[in-house]
Amino acid sequence: MKELSGASLHLALIHYPVVNKNGETIASAVTNLDIHDIARISRTYGIRSFHIVTPLKDQQVLVRRIISHWLTGGGADYNSDRRDALSLIRLQSSVADAVAEIREAGAGTPKLVATCARMRPESVGYTVMREFIAEGRPCLLCFGTAWGLPETFLKEADYVLDPIDGGTGYNHLSVRSAVSIILDRLVGQYR
Amino acid sequence: MKELSGASLHLALIHYPVVNKNGETIASAVTNLDIHDIARISRTYGIRSFHIVTPLKDQQVLVRRIISHWLTGGGADYNSDRRDALSLIRLQSSVADAVAEIREAGAGTPKLVATCARMRPESVGYTVMREFIAEGRPCLLCFGTAWGLPETFLKEADYVLDPIDGGTGYNHLSVRSAVSIILDRLVGQYR
Repeated sequence: MKELSGASLHLALIHYPVVNKNGETIASAVTNLDIHDIARISRTYGIRSFHIVTPLKDQQVLVRRIISHWLTGGGADYNSDRRDALSLIRLQSSVADAVAEIREAGAGTPKLVATCARMRPESVGYTVMREFIAEGRPCLLCFGTAWGLPETFLKEADYVLDPIDGGTGYNHLSVRSAVSIILDRLVGQYR
Repeated sequence: MKELSGASLHLALIHYPVVNKNGETIASAVTNLDIHDIARISRTYGIRSFHIVTPLKDQQVLVRRIISHWLTGGGADYNSDRRDALSLIRLQSSVADAVAEIREAGAGTPKLVATCARMRPESVGYTVMREFIAEGRPCLLCFGTAWGLPETFLKEADYVLDPIDGGTGYNHLSVRSAVSIILDRLVGQYR
């Protein structure tokens, strides 16, 4: 059970569709450190696959260049732990493509679990979602870059998780921090 | 109680003394994104102060330049939430200086709580440390950059926290992820 906790869980880091500071839907740029940090977190918790979603061709070239450096280039010899983490990455043009690949890999049709920095009427808690995941039901956990996922995406998701509330009302974490905390809440174990 | 959970907690991001890949004690370079991400996490959980520790003068100049951009420069107008987070930062030449400043600010003498990616015989669990913090006892939570804190530092600390174990044996998280997860375990609240 402990070893398998993340095995039905997939993760998507979404660069389109997301919103900017003014709430407009945009395609954001890929951040190198997001790729590394989130791959390492995913590997730590035994997540099944980590999907980087961007429809922009030049951004896809950038992502492929970063991954290949660490999987087969100079980085692979320098740091095999990093290779291990980055091998979880799948590059996708859309969230629908990520869902299709997960389904075709025989991992079932994942429920779309969105994240959001604001509380919503339909938000679900971590305890409920943790039990859902522990039952082995496949989920694709979706994180928006920039100012987060658009309203249309949140409405279409199967679930939206509660925001991370540190008791201060401040809700401006980096996506790297949000992924770290949420994965620990959903599949982490400690004394 | 909820609003006050992080109020006795201070955080140190240590660039010296830390160890490199070969276990030698070095001074590491400051990473811009560490400053931002960890300031935002600290602000989210109501941490009292965030100490960036480096004895290197050129690195101190760099940190001051980053902070001043966001506190009083162009960044302050552009993103006041970021200013809010970065105002928690204190630049220190040593951990001893951080302890002295916390004591002089009237916050008491903090216990040194070190973090480490490997399990140690004396390691303490998160539940125990969470109760300790909830009682309002001041703690300086210490995170090493590079390959982590040296053995001498760990031996001299009052407590060493359990490593983050995602159930896979992989223990190569970024310091940004480690801070996020550990603060949530120590002072986070959720349903």
